Amino acid sequence: MHISSQFDSGAIEILAAADPADIRLNIRSDSAAEFRQWFHFRVSGVAGQALVMRLLNAGDCTYSDGWHGYQAIASYDRRHWFRVPTAYDGKVLTISHTAECDSVYYAYFEPYSWERHLDLIAQAVPEMRVMHLGSSLQGRDIDKLSWGSGAQQVWIIARQHPGESMTEWLVEGLIERLLDPADPVTRKLAQLATLHIVPNMNPDGAALGNLRSNAAGANLNREWMAPSLERSPEVLHARQAMHDSGVDLFLDIHGDETIPYVFVDGCEMIPGYAASLVAQQEAFLARLLQISPDFQREHGYAPDRFSDEMLTLASKYVGHAFGCVSLTLEMPFKDNANLPDPEHGWSAARSKRLGAALLEAVLAHCIDSKPETI
Amino acid sequence: MHISSQFDSGAIEILAAADPADIRLNIRSDSAAEFRQWFHFRVSGVAGQALVMRLLNAGDCTYSDGWHGYQAIASYDRRHWFRVPTAYDGKVLTISHTAECDSVYYAYFEPYSWERHLDLIAQAVPEMRVMHLGSSLQGRDIDKLSWGSGAQQVWIIARQHPGESMTEWLVEGLIERLLDPADPVTRKLAQLATLHIVPNMNPDGAALGNLRSNAAGANLNREWMAPSLERSPEVLHARQAMHDSGVDLFLDIHGDETIPYVFVDGCEMIPGYAASLVAQQEAFLARLLQISPDFQREHGYAPDRFSDEMLTLASKYVGHAFGCVSLTLEMPFKDNANLPDPEHGWSAARSKRLGAALLEAVLAHCIDSKPETI
Amino acid sequence: MHISSQFDSGAIEILAAADPADIRLNIRSDSAAEFRQWFHFRVSGVAGQALVMRLLNAGDCTYSDGWHGYQAIASYDRRHWFRVPTAYDGKVLTISHTAECDSVYYAYFEPYSWERHLDLIAQAVPEMRVMHLGSSLQGRDIDKLSWGSGAQQVWIIARQHPGESMTEWLVEGLIERLLDPADPVTRKLAQLATLHIVPNMNPDGAALGNLRSNAAGANLNREWMAPSLERSPEVLHARQAMHDSGVDLFLDIHGDETIPYVFVDGCEMIPGYAASLVAQQEAFLARLLQISPDFQREHGYAPDRFSDEMLTLASKYVGHAFGCVSLTLEMPFKDNANLPDPEHGWSAARSKRLGAALLEAVLAHCIDSKPETI
Amino acid sequence: MHISSQFDSGAIEILAAADPADIRLNIRSDSAAEFRQWFHFRVSGVAGQALVMRLLNAGDCTYSDGWHGYQAIASYDRRHWFRVPTAYDGKVLTISHTAECDSVYYAYFEPYSWERHLDLIAQAVPEMRVMHLGSSLQGRDIDKLSWGSGAQQVWIIARQHPGESMTEWLVEGLIERLLDPADPVTRKLAQLATLHIVPNMNPDGAALGNLRSNAAGANLNREWMAPSLERSPEVLHARQAMHDSGVDLFLDIHGDETIPYVFVDGCEMIPGYAASLVAQQEAFLARLLQISPDFQREHGYAPDRFSDEMLTLASKYVGHAFGCVSLTLEMPFKDNANLPDPEHGWSAARSKRLGAALLEAVLAHCIDSKPETI
Ligand SMILES: [Ca+2]
Ligand SMILES: [Ca+2]
Ligand SMILES: [Ca+2]
Ligand SMILES: [Ca+2]
Repeated sequence: MHISSQFDSGAIEILAAADPADIRLNIRSDSAAEFRQWFHFRVSGVAGQALVMRLLNAGDCTYSDGWHGYQAIASYDRRHWFRVPTAYDGKVLTISHTAECDSVYYAYFEPYSWERHLDLIAQAVPEMRVMHLGSSLQGRDIDKLSWGSGAQQVWIIARQHPGESMTEWLVEGLIERLLDPADPVTRKLAQLATLHIVPNMNPDGAALGNLRSNAAGANLNREWMAPSLERSPEVLHARQAMHDSGVDLFLDIHGDETIPYVFVDGCEMIPGYAASLVAQQEAFLARLLQISPDFQREHGYAPDRFSDEMLTLASKYVGHAFGCVSLTLEMPFKDNANLPDPEHGWSAARSKRLGAALLEAVLAHCIDSKPETI
Repeated sequence: MHISSQFDSGAIEILAAADPADIRLNIRSDSAAEFRQWFHFRVSGVAGQALVMRLLNAGDCTYSDGWHGYQAIASYDRRHWFRVPTAYDGKVLTISHTAECDSVYYAYFEPYSWERHLDLIAQAVPEMRVMHLGSSLQGRDIDKLSWGSGAQQVWIIARQHPGESMTEWLVEGLIERLLDPADPVTRKLAQLATLHIVPNMNPDGAALGNLRSNAAGANLNREWMAPSLERSPEVLHARQAMHDSGVDLFLDIHGDETIPYVFVDGCEMIPGYAASLVAQQEAFLARLLQISPDFQREHGYAPDRFSDEMLTLASKYVGHAFGCVSLTLEMPFKDNANLPDPEHGWSAARSKRLGAALLEAVLAHCIDSKPETI
Repeated sequence: MHISSQFDSGAIEILAAADPADIRLNIRSDSAAEFRQWFHFRVSGVAGQALVMRLLNAGDCTYSDGWHGYQAIASYDRRHWFRVPTAYDGKVLTISHTAECDSVYYAYFEPYSWERHLDLIAQAVPEMRVMHLGSSLQGRDIDKLSWGSGAQQVWIIARQHPGESMTEWLVEGLIERLLDPADPVTRKLAQLATLHIVPNMNPDGAALGNLRSNAAGANLNREWMAPSLERSPEVLHARQAMHDSGVDLFLDIHGDETIPYVFVDGCEMIPGYAASLVAQQEAFLARLLQISPDFQREHGYAPDRFSDEMLTLASKYVGHAFGCVSLTLEMPFKDNANLPDPEHGWSAARSKRLGAALLEAVLAHCIDSKPETI
Repeated sequence: MHISSQFDSGAIEILAAADPADIRLNIRSDSAAEFRQWFHFRVSGVAGQALVMRLLNAGDCTYSDGWHGYQAIASYDRRHWFRVPTAYDGKVLTISHTAECDSVYYAYFEPYSWERHLDLIAQAVPEMRVMHLGSSLQGRDIDKLSWGSGAQQVWIIARQHPGESMTEWLVEGLIERLLDPADPVTRKLAQLATLHIVPNMNPDGAALGNLRSNAAGANLNREWMAPSLERSPEVLHARQAMHDSGVDLFLDIHGDETIPYVFVDGCEMIPGYAASLVAQQEAFLARLLQISPDFQREHGYAPDRFSDEMLTLASKYVGHAFGCVSLTLEMPFKDNANLPDPEHGWSAARSKRLGAALLEAVLAHCIDSKPETI
């Protein structure tokens, strides 16, 4: 048997891989920071064997509480992923699985590779405009797609945290709906809004198999007050383009390691945030609640008191700077406990459906914001 | 050149077809009734030729007013249909088109064949149950699909009027969404409702290329008070199955030859129809208005005073007999003038999107009707 | 439970269909002739039930010897067909099968509908020319596709016998290869030959569910000496077009009910058939033997002595009239016993591969025939 | 405008990229060796602009003669690649192209990424066995697929030279045919042979965008006499597996920068190579000539006199060590001048067809080698 991770977003440390019944692994840290939770590796030569894989340092990971109730995913064909039995004892995460084929992949969540990202951008051409916002530290393109011809400037960014691959799946679902010429939601939206979409804010971190940081070890979602070319060019360039276009609605897409629900964090705690914006935010969330049974509002982050540090986060910075509805949308790594799927848990496919559904809430927001333009 | 119509739903009468610039045709009547508006034919051997096709009896058709603003559709590959220049002078409908290929089809709307119907049913197996409700007069199966395990009995029927092929496209879109295991709308709906779907209520009429009637010449949507084995077994069998299951929500899908909008006709005029049902109907329509920019409520049928004959219509009969929300949904043959598409007009693809969107309104209705079950 | 056959090529007679364990059926005769062997029907409402279907008149069918070793095919989704246990006692053919779904189809061979035929033609547009040769007795188009720009006139016709649906599957595979712009065989062939392809010589018989005859009861492959508008317009029109173009190579595609092999019948017995043609025929067959392990030359029709009646057959007529290689290609209804597939037997997919492989032999023939043009 | 190459097999050096009409570039050398000819880069922000890209050091590349008659390829969607006007003056290669979209890729040949490679392997599971032969210097898996259950051991390897991406396309076409359960060629072959396929012998070089060498700068096709873990583990592991299984037929797939034809180089010059093997080699080539009009035997490498260094090449080493037919198959980077395609030149699609066709020659070889087993 052999374990490898030398591919896009591959990440694991091998301690012992001689005995299928006693595979010992460690979860690798980010390439230049101490975050650790993401794993993605391939096991070869194990058809018919009962694998017991113990991730020994699970208890020392960034979100060790997230392992409670977590089930790892596996795939033979890299298309269809399914959950496999996984147990956590507070220290070690143990994955137990009998491989049906010679080669099997395991991952924290369904990966979304840089090759697939480039395909996503390429398929959108020429229906959309593509703008090169700038380059990552390792020289990857930060691409922004733009679509529609309306006055409302809607920005959607994803994958500041590179291990949150469900976020790019969400964007793929959203883009596919935008490219559907028969969909009345998108046909109407194109009249009212211009969408600016950055499917991958952190391509280096994604390719490197990082959980939360870029090639310099920066957590991009703490860089919005003072991004720099040296440490966070990805944010610097995106933020500049936002100031160039203006922002009327902002969605920053994330994944959450611990909470088994889809939820949103808003801007109501920001001092001076207009009551009218709080009402619009409320309307957006009420609408999304109607549209998607995978969304809910009971569970989420505890309501924080405002602190200046908050403005280092993308959605707070944008809400504050542009005076617009600005939301962090979080999807689970585990499942939506309100509508659980034991076979797949939360998945790429469900993330895509949520991305498509989001457009209905975006349209409602644009209609409400500019009632005279309809 | 040659004109033929010997295929599923083919219908035309040829008066003169020797000169491409002077093709004279008549729209054929239904096989056993005087309705006439549907046409569907193929022209061969005309690559590069400028065809002028005059439908001489257009002014004598069942809905001659419907020709105003109507554009015929054409296709080379029978997959992609597009509108071609069409003029109506109050008597003659003239289609002018230069064929790019040796073979081209023209039709009143995108056809939906019996073969495709059988494939639709077959693809739904085994995810759905299939019940043979009975046979048409010519011996075709009247199939009912059922799906979900909830208490609410939702019935959706289509194509009582066989020339309204957009109605089966709508159902195809609806079924495809039901079969999507990642869609939270359908996953939730399966818990609350059992859907009973009859994709084609009039298979004989559809295969025969009829506009409004079955093989006996009956307009099925006038048969609901007293259906008979001899004249309307299609209605007789479906009605019986409804009484067997009960009905909590009913949607009857139609096409309208004249009005260039999607609209709905309800049951508020029926004596004794409960105020609570009127409110539920209102909620359904308000929700659908939110969901689909292709729906609207300004244009539609004039509010009728109730007459006993009304109960011969499916939606009125069901609303009256079962005391439930019961709607006739109408799609245009032309286009939705609120969101026009000059290339395609109203289309199979747009009908499918509307079918998928309907499920969101159905889910909302089921949630509202049984709030304690959520 | 319910049995129906009211669809394209549907054919069965129901004697008793109340008890799944005792279903009694008869194979229907052709619509206007006494041939009988084709069946195609649907059984509904039988999920989980062990069906025993006895075809009581099997022993009286046209090729009753063909039932020995024959296994019927079944499908739930009308795409994937598989063989089911079938026994023949010299009189009754008994099909035993437990249906996994509510709806299941049984047939003599994988059907190829008129709708699929029209799609096949339509997909070939505009890469190919389409010529309307004439109309069948019931008014269906007899279409000829033409492809390539070379001097050699190659004619390929299929489905004179409408129940031999594998023949149109073969043509579909052949056409798909012709439409592949990267295939060097077809790119080269286009320079040397013009292909004339009639995918369905007998559309009426096919739609009617006939085994061997058209709507007038004529066996088209006995009409080539004296076709008539009244009895065999399908042959009359095709034959005329052949005389218009000339023929340098002719392939007539058939199915055989009895012999479990792919084989060819040639023209060597025709008086006056040139020795050079016999050599070319031999070269064609030797080449096909190399190309396709599904072809063989041991088993086939006994070498007949020539009789004048032979010239009523398409391949003999053409070989005689045009002095060219002219072959009848036969595929089994059962399986190729040299390379058996117990799950599928001979199939649509294998027929398509044979159609694609034929083009290599056609190319070799064209190269050999005109060596100076290469 | 912006030029980037930070992706799988990306390779270019940018000298000046400010003026679309005066873009100056250099072709990058391999990562650890002086070979240089491969390029692959993306240009953004240039919709509607006439690009003039000059590759200034083309005259100093490894196969500078290969630029004569060469046309670069371009793609917007990364799926469809087409040739663009390219001129070579003996020193500078100038690509002139007006981009229709915001983003366009240029490359030496259609790329085949490591992600696609992993998908290729994963799709073959579980129909094939996958063996991890060993790891590349950078830790990538060297995978061998095996298929079939026959006695003849057939080895097919590709992409020793990583810039020859057409070789992995060829293997993809070959594998797709092996996975077709209806193809008689592969069904027969499975009985006679066991195929051992290494789709990518040099994954590091491929990912790095190298032309000819691995991560250590080694030209793997000069390492077969004395491969080492330090310099050429890819060869070491594959060679060992060959000795474990034995080899009865060997095909090593390559691309040639200069000669615009598909051709083969054999083993007839090896001292002691048996006359029977030369005859078998001749039979293989004669058969391939029949099968694929893209193959030819007039043009190719000059017949070399044997030198000991020859045995450092894979096909010579294997022919010598195993006493079997052992061939180097070469495809052009430009086009097959016998059957040119001005739009695509030689392409991924044509490489795939050649891979599928090869199996017919392999089958013939296996039949001839073991006539008693048929
Ligand atoms: Ca997070
Ligand atoms: Ca109507
Ligand atoms: Ca026959
Ligand atoms: Ca080379």
